[in-house]
Amino acid sequence: MIAVLKSNASDFEKSFEALLARGAMDISSVEGRVKELLQEIKTQGKEAVIAQVLRFDSWNPKSFLELKIAQKEMECAYNNLDSNLKHALELAYQRIYAFHTKQMPKTWLDFEENGNLLGQKVTPVDRAGLYIPGGKAAYPSSLLMNAIPALVAGVKEIVVCTPTPKNQPNTLLLAAMHLCGIKEAYKIGGASAIGTLAYGVSGKDGIQKVDVITGPGNIYVATAKKLVFGEVNIDMIAGPSEIGILHNGKGSVDYVAWDLLSQAEHDEMASSILITTNAEFANAVTKRVDELLKDLPRKEIAEKSINERGAIIIAKDLDEAVELMNEIAPEHLEVLVENPLEILPKIKHAGAIFIGENTPEPIGDYIAGPNHTLPTGGSAKFFSPLSTEHFMKKSSIIAFSKQGIMQLGKECGILAHTEGLEAHQNAVLARLNHN
Amino acid sequence: MIAVLKSNASDFEKSFEALLARGAMDISSVEGRVKELLQEIKTQGKEAVIAQVLRFDSWNPKSFLELKIAQKEMECAYNNLDSNLKHALELAYQRIYAFHTKQMPKTWLDFEENGNLLGQKVTPVDRAGLYIPGGKAAYPSSLLMNAIPALVAGVKEIVVCTPTPKNQPNTLLLAAMHLCGIKEAYKIGGASAIGTLAYGVSGKDGIQKVDVITGPGNIYVATAKKLVFGEVNIDMIAGPSEIGILHNGKGSVDYVAWDLLSQAEHDEMASSILITTNAEFANAVTKRVDELLKDLPRKEIAEKSINERGAIIIAKDLDEAVELMNEIAPEHLEVLVENPLEILPKIKHAGAIFIGENTPEPIGDYIAGPNHTLPTGGSAKFFSPLSTEHFMKKSSIIAFSKQGIMQLGKECGILAHTEGLEAHQNAVLARLNHN
Repeated sequence: MIAVLKSNASDFEKSFEALLARGAMDISSVEGRVKELLQEIKTQGKEAVIAQVLRFDSWNPKSFLELKIAQKEMECAYNNLDSNLKHALELAYQRIYAFHTKQMPKTWLDFEENGNLLGQKVTPVDRAGLYIPGGKAAYPSSLLMNAIPALVAGVKEIVVCTPTPKNQPNTLLLAAMHLCGIKEAYKIGGASAIGTLAYGVSGKDGIQKVDVITGPGNIYVATAKKLVFGEVNIDMIAGPSEIGILHNGKGSVDYVAWDLLSQAEHDEMASSILITTNAEFANAVTKRVDELLKDLPRKEIAEKSINERGAIIIAKDLDEAVELMNEIAPEHLEVLVENPLEILPKIKHAGAIFIGENTPEPIGDYIAGPNHTLPTGGSAKFFSPLSTEHFMKKSSIIAFSKQGIMQLGKECGILAHTEGLEAHQNAVLARLNHN
Repeated sequence: MIAVLKSNASDFEKSFEALLARGAMDISSVEGRVKELLQEIKTQGKEAVIAQVLRFDSWNPKSFLELKIAQKEMECAYNNLDSNLKHALELAYQRIYAFHTKQMPKTWLDFEENGNLLGQKVTPVDRAGLYIPGGKAAYPSSLLMNAIPALVAGVKEIVVCTPTPKNQPNTLLLAAMHLCGIKEAYKIGGASAIGTLAYGVSGKDGIQKVDVITGPGNIYVATAKKLVFGEVNIDMIAGPSEIGILHNGKGSVDYVAWDLLSQAEHDEMASSILITTNAEFANAVTKRVDELLKDLPRKEIAEKSINERGAIIIAKDLDEAVELMNEIAPEHLEVLVENPLEILPKIKHAGAIFIGENTPEPIGDYIAGPNHTLPTGGSAKFFSPLSTEHFMKKSSIIAFSKQGIMQLGKECGILAHTEGLEAHQNAVLARLNHN
C-alpha cells in the first residue's frame, strides 16, 4: 500500500527527506568496472567492442562489420508493421517534429550605433550518438524522442547504438529507425556503446567519434556518460522515472490512480507521489491504486515501486503543496487544480508539466510533441528536457568598427593592464595608434 | 620561435594531430586527490573546509564565519578604485549586461487548433555558485563574466567562492563583487570550493548547496567540477586558453603578432595558431612575434607557450584554411580576410568569432559584451559560451483539451500497448471512456 504522509506530522521532515533522495544513484559501485570497459575500448578498439558484445549480449560477431545494422533490415521491419501502429508512429513523429521545430534556437546579429556588430551564431554539431536501450525493453518512442531533435537541429551524421542480446534485434526499434531515416546503427549496448561513441574505433569499417551522446540507460550507461563528459557533451545523467501530482482533491480518483501506476510500472525504482489538500481523496486514491494493481500485467514491478517509493502527502493548503513539489522537482508533474494558470507561475522545478484532467502523463511519453527525455531525481532544478539545443552549440560574433574600437579601446586597455596582461593591452593600443 | 607548418608537407598530418590534442587534460593524475578532498567536505563539512583552507591557502580561519567576505569590504574596495578603472569596470558591466539581456531564452506557449496548449517555460535556477580564481592571478573580469549572466537570468541567490592565500583578498575582485551586488562570498578555493558549493555544509552559518557551478580554474577545479556534475549542473570543463587566426596575408603584421601574444601570455599551456595562405606573411609574423616577446612583462610564460604550443600553418587556399580551423575548433577565432561575411557561414566551430582588424581578441575578454568564458581544447564542437542559459532551465508545458485527448488518445494507447505498458494505456483509456 502506498504510504500516506501528513505534512503536519512530527516525523514528516524525515520521510520527506527520503523522498528528496529518491533518485540518488551510487555510481561508485559500478564506476571501476565501467572505467575498465571504457579503457579497453579506448586502447584496443574493435577487438574490445567485439569481446564486450560477446560478454554482455551473448553472441559472437564474426567481424566488426557484423555489428552494423543494415538499412534494408530497418525498412523491412517498418513495412511489416501493423497499419494502426504504423499510423500511430507516424503521427507521433509528425507531432514531435513540429514541437521541436518551434523550440529551435536562432542565430541573431545586432548592430550598435557605432557600427559594431554583435551576436550569436547557432550551428548543429557534426555528429551525434544516440543510445537506445534494446532487447526486451526496447522502446521505439525513445528512438523518436532522441533522433527527431537531432534531425530538426540539422545534424548531418546521426549514429544509433542499441544492445541486441543474442543478435536478435527488436523489430519495432528497427522500424522506428527507418521512420527517422537512420543510416548508421550498431548492435552495441551499455557502457561499450558509450565508449565506442565517445572515442570512436579506428580502422577499416571503424566508427568515428561523436560530439554529443544522448539517450536513456541503466546505471552502467549513466556512469559511462558521466565519465566521457567533457570529451563529448551529454544530455543529462538520468535515473529512474517519477511522477508528482498536485491535486486539489476534486475530480476523478481513477485518473489519479492510473497516472500514479503508469509511472510505477516502469521500474521498481520509479517514484509516484501525489500531493493533495484533501485527506478523503488521498484515502480513496490509496484504495483504488491497490485495486487497479491486481490485474496489471507488470504488477510485480508496479507494486514494489508503489509500496517502497510511492507516497501521498496531505498538505495543509495548495501553497504548501506547491512548495513541497518544488522541492521534489519531479520529472513529470501533473497539475489538477481549479485554476492551473494561477498555480503555473509558482511552479519552479519540473521536467514537464501536465495540466488538467485531459492530460495524463503518458500523452507526453508518446504523442503530445514535447520530449519525454526529462531530468530526474530533482535535477529538474538545473537540467532541461532533451531538445534541439542539445544537438547545437553557439559561437559569439564580435565585429568592431573603427569607431567602436576608438570609443572602447582605452577602457579595454585599462582593464587588461589592471589584470597584468600587457600583450592584451598592446593588441588594443596597436589599433588605437594606427586608426 | 613559433613553428611553421605547411599543409602540403609530408609530416603535416602528424604535427596537426598534436595541435588537435592541445587541450587534453589528464585528470586521472589528480582525480584521486580531488575525490578525497570532496569526500572530506561531504562527510565532515565545515571542519574539512577549514582544514583545507589552512592546507592550501596557508592561513587558519578561527571560525567558519571568518571565511565569509563582508559586503562592507567589497564596498570599501570599490570606493577606493582609481576613477578611470572604476569607469572602465562600469562600462564593461553595462555592455556585458546589455548583451546577455539579448540572449535570454523566453517562455513560449502555443495553441493547437484542437485547443491543446503546448510550450516551454523558462525559469532561473534558485541558487548559483561562481568559482573565481584568486590570489595573484585574480581577474575582476571573470567575476563580471560569471555574475552578470546569473543576474540577467534572475537567479535570486548568487554565491562566490575564491581562494584567498594568506587571507589577503584581492581588492580588485572585491570591488567587482560590489559592482555586481554580490551578497554572499567565501574565501574558499580550488576543489574545496567546488565541494562546498556542490554539497553545501550544514550547521549554523553553514552554506546551502547550489544548483549550478560556473567559472574557470586549474586542473583541480576542472576535475572537481566534472566529479560533481550531475549533483549540480556545470558550465563546461575548460582547459588552457587558445586563439586561432584565419588570415589572408594582407594587412598588419603587428596586429597578428600582438593577438597571438595576448593569448600566449595567459599560460604556458596556451595555444596561439595562425593559419594563412601567404608564406611571406607567415615569416613576417614569426619574426615580429620574436621581437615583441623580448620586452613583454610576462615574457617567460609567453615564450614557452609560443615555442611549445604556437603554430603557423601555411594552407594552400582559404577553403583549406577554414577546414583546418574547423577541425581545431578554437576557443577564440579571429577572421582577417577580405570578405568575412562570405567565410562566416563556413565556420562551424569556435567559441567566439572576432571579425576584422578592428576586433582584437582582448576586446572580447573585457568590454565587447559577449561572454569571455568559452569552450577550449576543441570542445567548441559541442559546448557553447557561458550564457544566461547556464543559469536557467526549461519545463515543457502540455495542456490537452477534451477534443485533443479524443483525437490523439487512441494512437497514444496503441504505442503504450506496443511497448508493453498497460497502465500507460489505461490512463489514457480512462479519459477516452469518460469523455
